[in-house]
Amino acid sequence: MNLIESLNWRYATKKYSDRKVSADDLNKIIAATNLSASSAGLQPYRLFIVENQELRNKLGEGSFNGQIADSSHLLVFAAFEKITEEHIETYINHIASERGLPVEALADFKAALVNGILNRTDEVNFTWAARQAYIGLGTALIAAADLQIDSTPMEGFDADKFDELLNLKEKGLKSVVTLALGYRDEEQDMYAKFKKVRLAKDDFASVIS
Amino acid sequence: MNLIESLNWRYATKKYSDRKVSADDLNKIIAATNLSASSAGLQPYRLFIVENQELRNKLGEGSFNGQIADSSHLLVFAAFEKITEEHIETYINHIASERGLPVEALADFKAALVNGILNRTDEVNFTWAARQAYIGLGTALIAAADLQIDSTPMEGFDADKFDELLNLKEKGLKSVVTLALGYRDEEQDMYAKFKKVRLAKDDFASVIS
Repeated sequence: MNLIESLNWRYATKKYSDRKVSADDLNKIIAATNLSASSAGLQPYRLFIVENQELRNKLGEGSFNGQIADSSHLLVFAAFEKITEEHIETYINHIASERGLPVEALADFKAALVNGILNRTDEVNFTWAARQAYIGLGTALIAAADLQIDSTPMEGFDADKFDELLNLKEKGLKSVVTLALGYRDEEQDMYAKFKKVRLAKDDFASVIS
Repeated sequence: MNLIESLNWRYATKKYSDRKVSADDLNKIIAATNLSASSAGLQPYRLFIVENQELRNKLGEGSFNGQIADSSHLLVFAAFEKITEEHIETYINHIASERGLPVEALADFKAALVNGILNRTDEVNFTWAARQAYIGLGTALIAAADLQIDSTPMEGFDADKFDELLNLKEKGLKSVVTLALGYRDEEQDMYAKFKKVRLAKDDFASVIS
């Protein structure tokens, strides 16, 4: 399928079959998400892939989203609550190592990051980090559809509970959005057959020529 | 190119050539972005495609992002500052019309939207709307790369100035992120040759099996 076909094929799956997503396909989705654009390349978020059924049952308890427990895998996107000088140092060292450069060659870039990011409040940086995670979500949605794997993005979850069960707080992370992966149960999911509704092109986009 | 190849090919372009993106390709990018996943399908953001050179010069004045004026087109993603009952009514009427349903058949869905969205503060809803726009940004980045069109996502712009020059405030919109489109000037852009740096897979993603 090409991109437009994949996007049309995709829908927010309500009922999943028992079929599991393969490790190979999961790795492709992770690799694509990891390649997402990210402001200054900093990737201020992390991805958790929950396959464990017991844990998914706990995460899904009391939620109206049965997909948390009933899908094949649950992706949780978690953003850093604070950006620290250590994040920036680690990143700069990683670039130097990957590009075979002395760290000193990146001094101006580092200063720009420190100046631009560490002068902002933690709240502003969290808003920013969460938005970066959503670019990753956009990629993961397409990567899954490209493999004809169904998915359900979910925002209405108990973030505090997720953070606790996934031990995110001790990593300085906070869950911001989740994505169930699996295969649709076409017979049980009436939404699979609904026409996708999107804005008319001219209602969505305006060209100023 | 497949998705992984497209994502590897993409980089935040610094210098653009004079080559323009065709109307046909622009329409493909707009169509893909319009098909992005969006919470409850509500699409609480709009896309502005600025081709006009004079306007792009004004938008780019005083910015360190030469790409605003020097690229082929500038996409501006703008999110609604408030979500109103009218947004929801318009959306429900649009679904009814597209799916050939009486509006009454969507009463429960409408009540859930009103209850879920209108009970939140405008600030919470704007945060949410901006994040939806970032899913669209994730799609637009991939749609461009898929067509071998270069792009530059840019967050460091003067949103108030953009809102004024694009008349967004009177539409209830606020610019949240921009994306320049065009073709790289490979000779002038040293960044075109840099190795892409991303987290090691295990630093980015954790599988809980």
